[in-house]
Amino acid sequence: MKFQIQRDSLVQSVQDVMKAVTSRTTIPILTGIKIVASEEGVTLTGSDSDISIESFIPKESDGNEIVEISRTGSIVLQAKFFSEIVKKLPTDKVEIDVQNHLQTVIRSGKSEFNLNGLDAEEYPHLPQLSEEKIFRIPTDLLKAMVRQTVFAVSTSETRPILTGVNWKVEDAELTCIATDSHRLALRKAKVETEANESYNVVIPGKSLSELSKILDDNNDLIDIVITENQVLFKAENLLFFSRLLEGNYPDTTRLIPNESKTEIGMQTKEFLQAIDRASLLAREGRNNVVKFSTIEDGVVEISSNTPEIGKVVEEVQSQFIEGEDLKISFSAKYMMDALKALEGTEIKVSFTGAMRPFVIRPMNDESILQLILPVRTY
Amino acid sequence: MKFQIQRDSLVQSVQDVMKAVTSRTTIPILTGIKIVASEEGVTLTGSDSDISIESFIPKESDGNEIVEISRTGSIVLQAKFFSEIVKKLPTDKVEIDVQNHLQTVIRSGKSEFNLNGLDAEEYPHLPQLSEEKIFRIPTDLLKAMVRQTVFAVSTSETRPILTGVNWKVEDAELTCIATDSHRLALRKAKVETEANESYNVVIPGKSLSELSKILDDNNDLIDIVITENQVLFKAENLLFFSRLLEGNYPDTTRLIPNESKTEIGMQTKEFLQAIDRASLLAREGRNNVVKFSTIEDGVVEISSNTPEIGKVVEEVQSQFIEGEDLKISFSAKYMMDALKALEGTEIKVSFTGAMRPFVIRPMNDESILQLILPVRTY
Repeated sequence: MKFQIQRDSLVQSVQDVMKAVTSRTTIPILTGIKIVASEEGVTLTGSDSDISIESFIPKESDGNEIVEISRTGSIVLQAKFFSEIVKKLPTDKVEIDVQNHLQTVIRSGKSEFNLNGLDAEEYPHLPQLSEEKIFRIPTDLLKAMVRQTVFAVSTSETRPILTGVNWKVEDAELTCIATDSHRLALRKAKVETEANESYNVVIPGKSLSELSKILDDNNDLIDIVITENQVLFKAENLLFFSRLLEGNYPDTTRLIPNESKTEIGMQTKEFLQAIDRASLLAREGRNNVVKFSTIEDGVVEISSNTPEIGKVVEEVQSQFIEGEDLKISFSAKYMMDALKALEGTEIKVSFTGAMRPFVIRPMNDESILQLILPVRTY
Repeated sequence: MKFQIQRDSLVQSVQDVMKAVTSRTTIPILTGIKIVASEEGVTLTGSDSDISIESFIPKESDGNEIVEISRTGSIVLQAKFFSEIVKKLPTDKVEIDVQNHLQTVIRSGKSEFNLNGLDAEEYPHLPQLSEEKIFRIPTDLLKAMVRQTVFAVSTSETRPILTGVNWKVEDAELTCIATDSHRLALRKAKVETEANESYNVVIPGKSLSELSKILDDNNDLIDIVITENQVLFKAENLLFFSRLLEGNYPDTTRLIPNESKTEIGMQTKEFLQAIDRASLLAREGRNNVVKFSTIEDGVVEISSNTPEIGKVVEEVQSQFIEGEDLKISFSAKYMMDALKALEGTEIKVSFTGAMRPFVIRPMNDESILQLILPVRTY
């Protein structure tokens, strides 16, 4: 294998596939990046066996030559060193040349690296997915849906299925749900499908976070292929594979209350900042819990008391309070996570009593909701 | 004590004195910030007993009212909470009000904090230094001198004196020297003095690093007062005290060679980047050592070889090579530290053989030098 390549394209591709590479793997060859040079261009692959990322660098892009192939072939190079090296090479042009015994020479300007490579034949094969059934979603919408749900997955392995996000497609609508059993995040959006297929799968939260990081912010369509145990996201010149979690995701529809006894409208930012301050002293104490109560004239009081340190009282002027007066306690962290995930400057919180889960939604938007279980303190 | 204060001035002062506060202290009250309100303004103090920082907020600045004192007095508040609180307060105006039993109320907009304070009488007194003998240096020059030497102090406590920087003043010239016994950094500059005093003290490296962080980049003069066991840096509205290290700093003048057998001129940036790349594979191995040798036509070769991973060869075109040919090995980290500390785009390296310390200087500047001991490998 021998080719010349534009450094910046190589650096970008290496950074993308590095997202899947971990040094903590039981399969030594997965600490490497697989490089394949074909007549069409260069393909890089990184994998930790849960996530696999394939980045393709075409010979030409927008009429500019990116790669010049002298000899096709393949090699696996240690990801940690290869990624550092390409970032620091002195000139725009880089030559990669595999010689005898997998010795790989990387040349750029007056700099010459000689790396011990590994045989690409030993690198695990990526899953081959039949791509008959796909659905499509714009990249920026996909990133928003991930951001608005993935934070709510469980970080505990006691119920592994909750470490993933439940993706359901039905009637050309995608619903993403995440819960750690103390709070829940839900986001819906229309998707493009050809066949009107239904799916119900659980994607590891970590996979979605990594996917989000390597996708650019644009509205290009991403193709999504779901099989029994894999999901594949296809962007231009990028394939992102993730395994799916096995098992049944709990039915969360019954958790979400249909009615409410108290409805409160607030400015998102003002409410978020008041919660943040009210929890400053509580972070040390038990569970970071704040108290929330309606007082007179449409004012909401948020407070916390940590006797060793002190107490805080915040007042927020609501836009409206409808229904019963309320005193409730909840985790400030969960509330801040939920508020940060919501789009829009105004939110509506719907309570059904101090002991029941409550729901936060943007004003006039039914496509997203955040649900939080209160804490018993009153 | 009761006063109203502009939030941004308070936040800035709290950030400054926080640099001296540590949670790892055996004196519990030092986890707090002392606040004193006098007729003139508000003074904040933070200390870890090695470093003490005092920041003064005057009642007025440039004709704007910053503080309005209602009742003078003092209090000590937990630094960790107080600093977080002031940063997040909702309005520009903050009221601090000490009530009975050291209870302190912090009010801003609709936000009210109630903190348990500590008695300011129990806070250790700062050293009282006689300020008869001072010398002066512009802030930006002081910061440059610290930056160019402090990285070379020892991080090991086996010879505590080497964890400090040796400051000598003689004939109105300040010389700063730091060494960890493998490398040495030296910087000289003229200072302003009234009495033509001489000093020879050792200031903890950590103190100088913290001082550097809180000084603005300007050319206002800093007053420096040195006593037997303390140094005081005085900027506008800021006092920075540090204890001095006890003991004699080794005489380093004999370490610095007066003659050389090989002199090499190079572009700083090109040389630094070549060293950086040459060391990429060596970082794993023993000591991050690279080989440096003169080859034909004024070219310098820098290389390293880590058999398990691979090897690197870099060529740098020098501006000149005078004297004997040379093969030498040294720590890439020390060389990179030294090159980053030097000002100027061109440097000159003076060698006196493969086993002797060598000196790096900016071309045509005698006020700064970096010295490195080579490693035996050839």
